[in-house]
Amino acid sequence: MHEVAKGLVGVIVTETTASMVDGSAGHLTYRGYAIEDLTAHASYEEVAYLLLHQRLPNRRELTEFQEGLAAEMTLEPYFVEVMQRFPKNSHPLTILRTLISITGVYDATANDNSLEAELRKAYRLIAYTPIFTAAWARIRQGLAPIPPDKHLSLAASFLHMHTGVNPTPAEIAALNVYLILMADHSLNPSTFTSRVVASTDSDIYSAITAALGALKGPKHGGANEATMEMFMEIGNPENVSSFFTEQVKGNGRKIMGFGHRVYRTTDPRSVILRHHTEALAKSLGNTHWFDIAAGLENLALADPYFTERRIYANVDYYSSVLLYMLGIEPNLMPLVFAIGRMAGWVTHVLEQRLENRLIHPEALYIGENDRIWVNLEDR
Amino acid sequence: MHEVAKGLVGVIVTETTASMVDGSAGHLTYRGYAIEDLTAHASYEEVAYLLLHQRLPNRRELTEFQEGLAAEMTLEPYFVEVMQRFPKNSHPLTILRTLISITGVYDATANDNSLEAELRKAYRLIAYTPIFTAAWARIRQGLAPIPPDKHLSLAASFLHMHTGVNPTPAEIAALNVYLILMADHSLNPSTFTSRVVASTDSDIYSAITAALGALKGPKHGGANEATMEMFMEIGNPENVSSFFTEQVKGNGRKIMGFGHRVYRTTDPRSVILRHHTEALAKSLGNTHWFDIAAGLENLALADPYFTERRIYANVDYYSSVLLYMLGIEPNLMPLVFAIGRMAGWVTHVLEQRLENRLIHPEALYIGENDRIWVNLEDR
Repeated sequence: MHEVAKGLVGVIVTETTASMVDGSAGHLTYRGYAIEDLTAHASYEEVAYLLLHQRLPNRRELTEFQEGLAAEMTLEPYFVEVMQRFPKNSHPLTILRTLISITGVYDATANDNSLEAELRKAYRLIAYTPIFTAAWARIRQGLAPIPPDKHLSLAASFLHMHTGVNPTPAEIAALNVYLILMADHSLNPSTFTSRVVASTDSDIYSAITAALGALKGPKHGGANEATMEMFMEIGNPENVSSFFTEQVKGNGRKIMGFGHRVYRTTDPRSVILRHHTEALAKSLGNTHWFDIAAGLENLALADPYFTERRIYANVDYYSSVLLYMLGIEPNLMPLVFAIGRMAGWVTHVLEQRLENRLIHPEALYIGENDRIWVNLEDR
Repeated sequence: MHEVAKGLVGVIVTETTASMVDGSAGHLTYRGYAIEDLTAHASYEEVAYLLLHQRLPNRRELTEFQEGLAAEMTLEPYFVEVMQRFPKNSHPLTILRTLISITGVYDATANDNSLEAELRKAYRLIAYTPIFTAAWARIRQGLAPIPPDKHLSLAASFLHMHTGVNPTPAEIAALNVYLILMADHSLNPSTFTSRVVASTDSDIYSAITAALGALKGPKHGGANEATMEMFMEIGNPENVSSFFTEQVKGNGRKIMGFGHRVYRTTDPRSVILRHHTEALAKSLGNTHWFDIAAGLENLALADPYFTERRIYANVDYYSSVLLYMLGIEPNLMPLVFAIGRMAGWVTHVLEQRLENRLIHPEALYIGENDRIWVNLEDR
């Protein structure tokens, strides 16, 4: 009898040293550092360096890394032209998937899988993703894109390119925390996809293009969009109680941004995000959306239905509010997810190259056998 | 102790009714029909229908299917413009990957995963791939692309678009057989990739774009290119014997297009391809390349080193010669592979949708733990 490992649940396909998810303890570490420490102290750039180079940079290394990213921070006129012609209502991840694929077409070193070349391409991918995201957000509204400012941090640069306004320190800090929290999460489906593609010795652009295609799936990258839409439907903090009673308890409606397949306790990212979302809301002088989210979470935390089933807020819950307060439309949120996750994707591609083995499982044939050919006229 | 299933070798991830590979018997069937029967009797269109619709079409169904493909046989001026701007020396699969991704940007039904919509998109993908391949082959040489002829079979249409000359019946027959033999091969790495992406409920263009990225890997889709380059290095039938003695036996050089990880006997596709490659060579009045390939295979078949290790010619061996005689440059061969495999890829995406389960294996964390944060200035 052949056992089918449907969904490969519980199957360990590789070793990794990039990140560790402890679902029972509610603990997430990157290269051994707790995300609580990283979000309290580090910049996204430091975390990206940590993932790519396996240790935290010293001052000189961080400066060199920032210069390496800055060297890739350009928005070629060609890409602007391409984006201007794309249909404005295309799924944003379709756009980003295509722009990254085009980036590979134009990179003459695309097929050089040496570590040195791969690192430069990793820097390019990390630098281009916020540029493409901000440019598309504007171009689809008929606005001119704003070129990147090489002197800003990645979080600040993105916010500036997105709105044209200099972001406040609170806004930069909030996005920085979000990007760090998205940077890696072990073998999530898009990261697994990137490793499958890399395992054929294909190039990093093929791997990341594929990862973006996987992230596009509603089962993977669409949750904070859906969560924000739920908060918008609730509309006002005073509606939270009736929404919970009538929709959730009365109609069995699911709370978007709740529940996680790995965490059997609070998602540690959600705890950090609640704190930073509240801080951002207060700094903006408008706690409207935070109050809706926190109000609904408080009701669920007081309800045995949720606590007994260990259904808690996940990373998408508060991040949807955090990103919305930063001016990001719900359907653009998966692209901001991608900005953060890029560090993890490229890290896993490099890790796959270190000790590569073609990822090649099998299918069990359960179809018909020995069918006899019949000529077309006799069918 | 955690067991790591590196490469997922021997792990069964799904059931399938599309194709069956019997590696010990050297037997390959599509939906229960032996490839020997299909290549002897069927058109590629009939086989594509068989894969997509699970049974052979009758005359009316085949006509409707051909009309469905013909309705998608267009080369939009936009794509020609895009191709004309691409660097001519980019890896051809990078180009095709990008063109398929762009196709998704422009298809307003891209995210409609209903069977009806998916079938139409499958037809588009099957119809577009030969059009893109032929157009790129010409555009990278500075030639104008030739528009598709909706009245020709897919094999004939591709050859016409590629060269501008009406192909002979022998040429059409040879390509038809090749495309049928490439149409599916259970869970090869690119097909697995397409299913991983589809398992997030992402769209079919994301899945196929990802598959093309996997096919691009030298461990997957690059073998007939390397095989033809080996035949070109041998250069002449009279050099085969010295190549075998000095390079293969004397220097331990591998014969490209030999050996297969699943088939422990002759690759059944190779037997069929040898026959059709010889027939094509004779019809062209030039057996030069066939003689080199057959001469080298005969030497290996007579050598216990190869037979004891069960190292036989695989699908790439004769197909490289067959495609080369059809005027296809070695580095374009992976795209012709993709033309054939498209039927299988889209079939597997549809099969994944039928009873979908997110494909989500795990990684074993073996990195450092409990690292203590140190401020930047103290590192």
